[in-house]
Amino acid sequence: MDASDRRFSTTVDGLDTPILVVDLDVMEANLERTAAMARRHGVHLRPHVKTHKSPWIARRQLAHGAVGVTAAKLGEAEAMVDGGIMDVLIAFPLVGDAKLRRLERLCVDADRVAVSLDDLAVADGIASVARRLGRDLPVYLEVDTGLRRVGVPPADALRLAQDVARLDGVRIEAVMTHGGHVGAATSHAELERLARAQAERLVDVAHTIRGAGIEVPTVSPGSTLAAPFEADTEGVTEIRPGTYVLNDANTVARFSASWDRCAAYVVATVVARPVPDRAVVDAGTKSFGADVRIGGGGAPAQIVGRDDVRIVRASEEHGVLEVDPDSDLAIGDRVAIVMNHVCPTVNLYDELIGVSNGRVVRTIPVTARGRRT
Amino acid sequence: MDASDRRFSTTVDGLDTPILVVDLDVMEANLERTAAMARRHGVHLRPHVKTHKSPWIARRQLAHGAVGVTAAKLGEAEAMVDGGIMDVLIAFPLVGDAKLRRLERLCVDADRVAVSLDDLAVADGIASVARRLGRDLPVYLEVDTGLRRVGVPPADALRLAQDVARLDGVRIEAVMTHGGHVGAATSHAELERLARAQAERLVDVAHTIRGAGIEVPTVSPGSTLAAPFEADTEGVTEIRPGTYVLNDANTVARFSASWDRCAAYVVATVVARPVPDRAVVDAGTKSFGADVRIGGGGAPAQIVGRDDVRIVRASEEHGVLEVDPDSDLAIGDRVAIVMNHVCPTVNLYDELIGVSNGRVVRTIPVTARGRRT
Repeated sequence: MDASDRRFSTTVDGLDTPILVVDLDVMEANLERTAAMARRHGVHLRPHVKTHKSPWIARRQLAHGAVGVTAAKLGEAEAMVDGGIMDVLIAFPLVGDAKLRRLERLCVDADRVAVSLDDLAVADGIASVARRLGRDLPVYLEVDTGLRRVGVPPADALRLAQDVARLDGVRIEAVMTHGGHVGAATSHAELERLARAQAERLVDVAHTIRGAGIEVPTVSPGSTLAAPFEADTEGVTEIRPGTYVLNDANTVARFSASWDRCAAYVVATVVARPVPDRAVVDAGTKSFGADVRIGGGGAPAQIVGRDDVRIVRASEEHGVLEVDPDSDLAIGDRVAIVMNHVCPTVNLYDELIGVSNGRVVRTIPVTARGRRT
Repeated sequence: MDASDRRFSTTVDGLDTPILVVDLDVMEANLERTAAMARRHGVHLRPHVKTHKSPWIARRQLAHGAVGVTAAKLGEAEAMVDGGIMDVLIAFPLVGDAKLRRLERLCVDADRVAVSLDDLAVADGIASVARRLGRDLPVYLEVDTGLRRVGVPPADALRLAQDVARLDGVRIEAVMTHGGHVGAATSHAELERLARAQAERLVDVAHTIRGAGIEVPTVSPGSTLAAPFEADTEGVTEIRPGTYVLNDANTVARFSASWDRCAAYVVATVVARPVPDRAVVDAGTKSFGADVRIGGGGAPAQIVGRDDVRIVRASEEHGVLEVDPDSDLAIGDRVAIVMNHVCPTVNLYDELIGVSNGRVVRTIPVTARGRRT
């Protein structure tokens, strides 16, 4: 489906612009599709909440069968637990006394908190929290399967597992990875190949660690782009996709969604028509984010629902549109814009506007916005 | 001065990371330098508050002699007036009844509100507000001097001025431009040439309109990069720089600041050292923004104060550092990071941490954060 085919409601009950709209009908379909895929493959679904930063949407994910959620930072996990989400993986190394004290408190408030790590020094801190709490804490050992960010190289994973296994207070729950590098794929076939390769690498690491007599209950790769192939990989027991709930121009560009599966869009108003082939809308990078389109091309975002205009440049408050000669676009008109990357876009908003059948049915507080510590 | 020469305090009284620090000593020097430059040239200074989004910093600008402030959006202007700033230019076309009602209210609360526009349709709306208020409203006519965003082409400015002058309720206060295109300069000489050219173009427009018998009291170009040359251009009466208060890697890259004049920096903590030549800090684009470096090169941000590490990639929560072989960088260490573009970075924070002589002396609420309508 072309970006111009999908009808996006821009009326939004007359709400002033720019706003970030979530089409709840599209979102629910996205949630169910991925949940059904996980069920079909017999893997747990632990969605990453960094995409929506909202306990309300996290609860919808649990309602569709997620076993718990993944959070990007301790503060994001705190916002989830405060919102009633009781099972959280913090997919970030926690370093420093201030964060360890907060982790201890969070473990009291939640049913289950797991943390990821790739270094014994970090595991030591977690172990100290566990001893103060008087109970074991589950940890995910992070393995680098190609992204070259955090995570031990696969060859070092056994040694890390052995070191961590010797610590009092931590219990190895999983090996995990985030295969963000699969986004470099330029075809669906290459995406599948890269996605399967990183998942298989993680499964191999689990086998190696188990071969040394250390239990590894969970094998957890995590990425929206790779999720269907991860779930289909023998030995994977859990997936952690994030973006699938809302999708964006990058998941479309990377063979993992169509425009009709993009649930989030910015509604903007035309505020200037200074020359015939140019218009300016009241939304720029402060409203749809500054992330570049995967695969290049330079488009700062994507106009959807009409084919006579294209966003060609953006500054913070201005989106500059190239306008076809026969377009009737006028000051006051509204357009729908799908962002390149929805996760940092959501982080720019205090609330999302939930619509169903084109009408506003609720606002969704982004309670984990800005939680970076 | 090299980025590695300036000493940046990363202790920040033990505050947990990531945080956005403002060195108030550096900021005050920046404020005074530009204010003195404006005084020397006899032009008014109306700083753009989009950089700091904080009434407290705006008051410091007024204390250094600014005549008022410039705001990017109506909501930003409301935050300024709520914070006691009584003279505001809204440098954005206001379209739609909801915004016009808010403008009317704002005009009651503030001493003076001016608005920019480049279209008679927008001027009509402003005139309707003026009539309801029973007093004239000052408007700035926006002229495109090369950025190709909003603004009438210079050749169309006289006709716009004549049309607007016929409206009851609006009073032409100024012609204005934003010469953002000067950032394309690849040398200081080219920057000067582009900056002078756009300022002179604006002065010419003012002359043309005045020649037709229409008063234009103020000639107002606005850009940190162009400011020294604008102030030095015969006929210019006001400048509206924004970034100068804090500066960033882009003002350094564009010959308009040095690293020791960068007042804002993110303090981050090393959380992973998975291989000898790589480290990861707890700050990514959610903490220092996703804007690219002007002039390319791909650096997502700039480590300052040490020369053994460089940020080479970033995702939302992770900054990936390339580490020299002889570096002693370890998990738990802190680094100072100057962002490419400070304005959208500030928009990611609820508060800035103000330090003086290396100690925290106040927090600065970013009350206009997220005010995009």
